[in-house]
Amino acid sequence: MTYSEILLEKISSSRELVGIIGLGYVGLPLAVSFSSAGSRVLGFDKSEEKTAKINAAKNYISDISEEEFQQAVGSGLLQATTDFSRIRECDAVLICVPTPLDVFKKPDMSFIEAACLDIARNMKPGTFISLESTTYPTTTEDFMLPLIERESGMKHGADFWLAFSPERVDPGNKDYHTRNTPKVLGALTPEGLQIGQAIYSKAIENIHPVSSPRVAEMVKILENTYRLVNISLVNELALLCGKMDINIWEVIEAAQTKPFGFQAFYPGPGIGGHCIPLDPFYLEYIAKKFNFDLTMINTAGHINLLMAHRMTLKITSALNRQQKSVNGSKIVFLGVAYKPGIDDERESPALKIMDEVVKKGADVSYHDPYIPQVKTPEGHLFRSVALESAVAEADCVVVTTHHPGFDPDYLLEKARLIVDLRNLIKRPSEKVYKL
Amino acid sequence: MTYSEILLEKISSSRELVGIIGLGYVGLPLAVSFSSAGSRVLGFDKSEEKTAKINAAKNYISDISEEEFQQAVGSGLLQATTDFSRIRECDAVLICVPTPLDVFKKPDMSFIEAACLDIARNMKPGTFISLESTTYPTTTEDFMLPLIERESGMKHGADFWLAFSPERVDPGNKDYHTRNTPKVLGALTPEGLQIGQAIYSKAIENIHPVSSPRVAEMVKILENTYRLVNISLVNELALLCGKMDINIWEVIEAAQTKPFGFQAFYPGPGIGGHCIPLDPFYLEYIAKKFNFDLTMINTAGHINLLMAHRMTLKITSALNRQQKSVNGSKIVFLGVAYKPGIDDERESPALKIMDEVVKKGADVSYHDPYIPQVKTPEGHLFRSVALESAVAEADCVVVTTHHPGFDPDYLLEKARLIVDLRNLIKRPSEKVYKL
Repeated sequence: MTYSEILLEKISSSRELVGIIGLGYVGLPLAVSFSSAGSRVLGFDKSEEKTAKINAAKNYISDISEEEFQQAVGSGLLQATTDFSRIRECDAVLICVPTPLDVFKKPDMSFIEAACLDIARNMKPGTFISLESTTYPTTTEDFMLPLIERESGMKHGADFWLAFSPERVDPGNKDYHTRNTPKVLGALTPEGLQIGQAIYSKAIENIHPVSSPRVAEMVKILENTYRLVNISLVNELALLCGKMDINIWEVIEAAQTKPFGFQAFYPGPGIGGHCIPLDPFYLEYIAKKFNFDLTMINTAGHINLLMAHRMTLKITSALNRQQKSVNGSKIVFLGVAYKPGIDDERESPALKIMDEVVKKGADVSYHDPYIPQVKTPEGHLFRSVALESAVAEADCVVVTTHHPGFDPDYLLEKARLIVDLRNLIKRPSEKVYKL
Repeated sequence: MTYSEILLEKISSSRELVGIIGLGYVGLPLAVSFSSAGSRVLGFDKSEEKTAKINAAKNYISDISEEEFQQAVGSGLLQATTDFSRIRECDAVLICVPTPLDVFKKPDMSFIEAACLDIARNMKPGTFISLESTTYPTTTEDFMLPLIERESGMKHGADFWLAFSPERVDPGNKDYHTRNTPKVLGALTPEGLQIGQAIYSKAIENIHPVSSPRVAEMVKILENTYRLVNISLVNELALLCGKMDINIWEVIEAAQTKPFGFQAFYPGPGIGGHCIPLDPFYLEYIAKKFNFDLTMINTAGHINLLMAHRMTLKITSALNRQQKSVNGSKIVFLGVAYKPGIDDERESPALKIMDEVVKKGADVSYHDPYIPQVKTPEGHLFRSVALESAVAEADCVVVTTHHPGFDPDYLLEKARLIVDLRNLIKRPSEKVYKL
């Protein structure tokens, strides 16, 4: 029997062990989805804290069903470890590590590289490897493949198979989670694709195969570039609408009555999270290698880069109406998560605006029921304060995230001045300064 | 009784006469929709040919149901005239004139201006006026209102009412036509809005009122800017994908499996038609007045401006593979309509590419079953040629529009070389050069 026959037979008789590297908001739900389907899963992470929590049946990802998680750990199907030598036990290794940008907005491939080295140095022959992290097209073929072959001394297609299958996790989405979100999969060879489909089909209802890893890499970038470009467009239009005395939210609501050819995006203080503000710049990076300039992504990036500054100007203008300066004013920010209802403040525009007004001399605080403390990009530490006293004492309340539960009527009654960057407050009022 | 009470009473007892200025692809379907609902309609157009056709019951707009049209004219409810003095007979006047860009890509307001003058010089007191043409926000309030008041000597709110209600006609759309596409309506006063809703409700199922004409103006621009930006984005990505050996159509098809947060747009040789390539530049124009630079629209416009040139380079590269130059080659274009299945070549990218390759010395012809003859922007006249002989003789067949009926297998068999700018040909072949 060849390695592929052995592996396919193992999968069909449910004796496979799936390794998942990176146990964050992508890897852990994926692990639970496999366990729930009866697959054995070994999760890998550099963080002792995370692996210990999992092994102690303590869930730390809010989108995961507590019941499924308890079952996964309780049944012994899901275990976690920091010992990467145990990769040799695995039949498949799925990589769910971060792909951030460095401070110069260039791709930071160090997490993918480390995962590849851990795999190459430990895997047994006959291992299927799939990358889920968003990255630039050609990563799987031109970055991972030579690295793994060199470090492992094994040969792709004979000893291991490589694929790319982008995660599509949307934190807080109540309708779509790991299992029922279709998964795109591109492998280097037909055999690799067959194995990948066999494995992923356990955890995910629909697999959409494509002709190559680079196509699958491009799919994910297209999805997120679409979002970056459209949010940037509507943010720019919102700023113009502000000058033209047009309520952009009323415009979007009306445009949505068009029953074809329109999808609504909403303005805000900037684009946050771990995907939309980052992924398109992976493509922009690789495009340079092909002597190609991605002007739309560049322009969208430019708009987003300026948003914190522009929002600071909004706050300045609002205070100015009441003959106050930013310097010396008490400013409280409501919501620092990058979107409503979640506890994630990565790349949140609120933090950047906080840094800007701190620099201008404001007395800054924030309230967020989901996030007890934050560190801004400039390194300032804040703890969430009580809503009532903060609103009562503030010269200016800035709505940066419209968490469920934020009460517009309460704010209208208690606050002296509100800069509403999320259309939380629908009633017209002299107190409210809108985006 | 006030004028508004008289008008509302007339409408409720179906005795109103609706005037429609401009009997093109927007005005004529709207006229028929009113007639079908039992309203009397008087259509106005400067073209004797159009009004004579209508009065002779000869329909010239393909999206109109022939039966409804015959009924409208046959019953006497729909009449057309070139005599604009008959505006005085009308209770409502709806303006459906073109708003093109001039050769410097600046708004050409001459048609709206002419309509306003015709109305102002002829209308009776108690007339409702609505503009449907896409234009920049503030047109109704700042351009039309003072013009009509000055020329008519009448007072808005007492003697007439002004509103903006953008057309949303999508030529060739089988599901949505005038009656069942919701209509946004913004008036200057609550009374004007009430009258506008009463009138439009006869012809259109759902009216979505907004707080002002400028909001309604912005709605239409947002809808079309969304399309311009997204088509431009995917066109730019398609060019990069070409260099990276990635099939962009496969990417889009896979991205569409994402069940949330994505809408597919398809690449092509450029953006055509009378809306998408024009409307956003109306907004860009007015933005300057507010010292605002719309960078997304600007970038999208830049991409679209270069598409014809880039497509010419694709043709040049394809011919080069077969050791041929554009100069002296026979090139036949399939499809000059700006989208499939329609007989409209306005702003069609095909014509611009034809001009470019003519300039480079190619022997150019075209085939389009919907369009018997065309004049290119550079003034070259062409007549559609027979498909068979043209394909057989051509050094290069360029697919510029994927009309229904174009047969990929036939082309693959008969053509020497195909530059497929529309993904008509799915089978891989040495003969095919893709966008």
